[in-house]
Amino acid sequence: MTQIKSIGILGGGQLGKMFLQKALDFNLDFFVLDPDPECSCKAICNNLTTGSFKDYNTVYNFGKQVDLITIEIEHVNIEALEQLEKEGKKVFPQPAVLRMIQDKGLQKEFYTAHNIPTPPYVLVNSKEEIYKHSSLFPVMQKMRKGGYDGKGVKPLKNEADIKDAFNEASVLESFADIAMEISVIVARNLSGEIKTFPVVEMVFNPEVNLVDNLLSPARISTETEKYAEEIAVKIAEKLGIVGVLAVEMFITKKGEILVNEMAPRPHNSGHHSIEANITSQYEQHLRAIMNWPLGDTSIVKPALMLNLLGHKDYSGKAIVTGLSEALKVSGVKPHWYGKEITKPFRKMGHITITGNSIEEVLEKAEKIRNTIKVIA
Amino acid sequence: MTQIKSIGILGGGQLGKMFLQKALDFNLDFFVLDPDPECSCKAICNNLTTGSFKDYNTVYNFGKQVDLITIEIEHVNIEALEQLEKEGKKVFPQPAVLRMIQDKGLQKEFYTAHNIPTPPYVLVNSKEEIYKHSSLFPVMQKMRKGGYDGKGVKPLKNEADIKDAFNEASVLESFADIAMEISVIVARNLSGEIKTFPVVEMVFNPEVNLVDNLLSPARISTETEKYAEEIAVKIAEKLGIVGVLAVEMFITKKGEILVNEMAPRPHNSGHHSIEANITSQYEQHLRAIMNWPLGDTSIVKPALMLNLLGHKDYSGKAIVTGLSEALKVSGVKPHWYGKEITKPFRKMGHITITGNSIEEVLEKAEKIRNTIKVIA
Repeated sequence: MTQIKSIGILGGGQLGKMFLQKALDFNLDFFVLDPDPECSCKAICNNLTTGSFKDYNTVYNFGKQVDLITIEIEHVNIEALEQLEKEGKKVFPQPAVLRMIQDKGLQKEFYTAHNIPTPPYVLVNSKEEIYKHSSLFPVMQKMRKGGYDGKGVKPLKNEADIKDAFNEASVLESFADIAMEISVIVARNLSGEIKTFPVVEMVFNPEVNLVDNLLSPARISTETEKYAEEIAVKIAEKLGIVGVLAVEMFITKKGEILVNEMAPRPHNSGHHSIEANITSQYEQHLRAIMNWPLGDTSIVKPALMLNLLGHKDYSGKAIVTGLSEALKVSGVKPHWYGKEITKPFRKMGHITITGNSIEEVLEKAEKIRNTIKVIA
Repeated sequence: MTQIKSIGILGGGQLGKMFLQKALDFNLDFFVLDPDPECSCKAICNNLTTGSFKDYNTVYNFGKQVDLITIEIEHVNIEALEQLEKEGKKVFPQPAVLRMIQDKGLQKEFYTAHNIPTPPYVLVNSKEEIYKHSSLFPVMQKMRKGGYDGKGVKPLKNEADIKDAFNEASVLESFADIAMEISVIVARNLSGEIKTFPVVEMVFNPEVNLVDNLLSPARISTETEKYAEEIAVKIAEKLGIVGVLAVEMFITKKGEILVNEMAPRPHNSGHHSIEANITSQYEQHLRAIMNWPLGDTSIVKPALMLNLLGHKDYSGKAIVTGLSEALKVSGVKPHWYGKEITKPFRKMGHITITGNSIEEVLEKAEKIRNTIKVIA
């Protein structure tokens, strides 16, 4: 592999910012492309290009100037990345992987093709078509493209709900009888080395379908953990992905594991790894795309990660309250994303809480959950 | 305390860079002043001013635009900081503390005035004056001002050495019969809360008088550790410093502790705390100057920090070799400072190695010590 000296990142949000906080430990130059000149990466990147990562020419020209292109959001212009790859640029994760994952329909077909357990589904092209599948109800409608952070997803319980359904190419997925949601972050480098992070347990905020908090390690049996990790490894292998990949899964009440969906990049369910694992997901992503040996993912401390969402009653210039109070508690690590404007439920930051046991971190989390608030 | 929204840092070297890597977790704006437009902070700061931190007008104008001024190097223009303080700006550490510490003669008088154990010394104003004190030989001559990183220090063993002595206002200090060199980093916030980091053990490279490596925790008795921490706390109290302070000490063969010198900022002897302590020295400095509660400094993992100096046979554009090999070892964390040009013994970066015991980290260090090299 030729010497890589510069890396371009499509997307300048919080994932890019946290990636750079770690990646700047290495002697590489970083470039960021984001449409928002006030994006999270603004404060940390001296080579920020303002422009759309969905536009062919913008992505192509941005990519030309660097040795390696990576992403922190998957909704980017794939055609430009394919062209750059054709011209010999390193693009990790690979455009073909992104093209498939961008489309939740293709994701589902990938799981089926490789015998990866996933909830039953059908694909539809319009709202009209949904009526044909009402025998499957209740279902979760997921837009094939463009959804993220709980957007583009809608539960359809009965035929009356169809009038409010998305009129878009979608996946209709049977409701899984969920006992727990878990996530496994797996990394693969160009040489084919693969490593998983210990399984984490995710607790969702049902009001907005966003992760409320996350526990590492998940409170599951060793067998379940092993099986979940095997699934993640199999997916990484079959994809041949270079980079990190988050695989979100359901554990059903019957004890089955079903893959929900995946994200080909550092992920909300890996934020705690900054403090709580020997190697963080951000460092692991860099190691993977640089084709360095993957890092030890062992747990250093049990952890709880709490998403800090904008308070539901406030919009406007963000004000953080209660920080000093929260900092009294040992192992409380706030991460603000540098977003100026808060909106109801906007991801404004997160707090990782480490301790000597899961019980201890749960106790600390109770204490600080209502201490820190993002208002306006 | 009024709301602090922006912080200006005098100096843009590696200490500033590592401070920013952590400080960017909080919702604050950062500004850096450094004479070198290619300084370590260039890659991480989007508000870098090129100019001298030794120049009154430059420092004054830089300070006017921010809410709080701090430093990452102590050789700065004190008069400008005093003026800014007079006008109501927060300046931490305080100019009066910097004025004293900048001058190793005043430092020595401070130790004497407060009964803080330190090697015996005399002050001289010129080379000529040294002859009067030859009965004290052998001594270490330390320039009162401007020395750092082993520069401005010279051993004088006998009268014949005086011809090569500095012709500067200096401290002549008796040789201590050193069994071990240790360092204690202590932090004090504006409310007067004080916390120390566990004592670390420093091993010097005698060729250049720079730290070669450092062990945390130091291999000393609980009593010695407690005494060293008490000395550091006493110094922080007597200074009334706001910020972190590194106190370097000798343990003599007789078991005495003598203070060697101090630095009013994050310090080489605290780099390991990024990975190896619950709170790093950089986060602690931010907490101290923001008057937030100080963080838990407990050890997460035993650690060894290895300074990466430019190879003695090379000058020019730096090339790092052996990185990928070193990254195979669990818990190996390189930190490059982003300096383009290497020179013999220039501090180009460091590696922190964590493990489950001091023995384990020593073993890993042996393995990688000769793996990574900075050549040109």
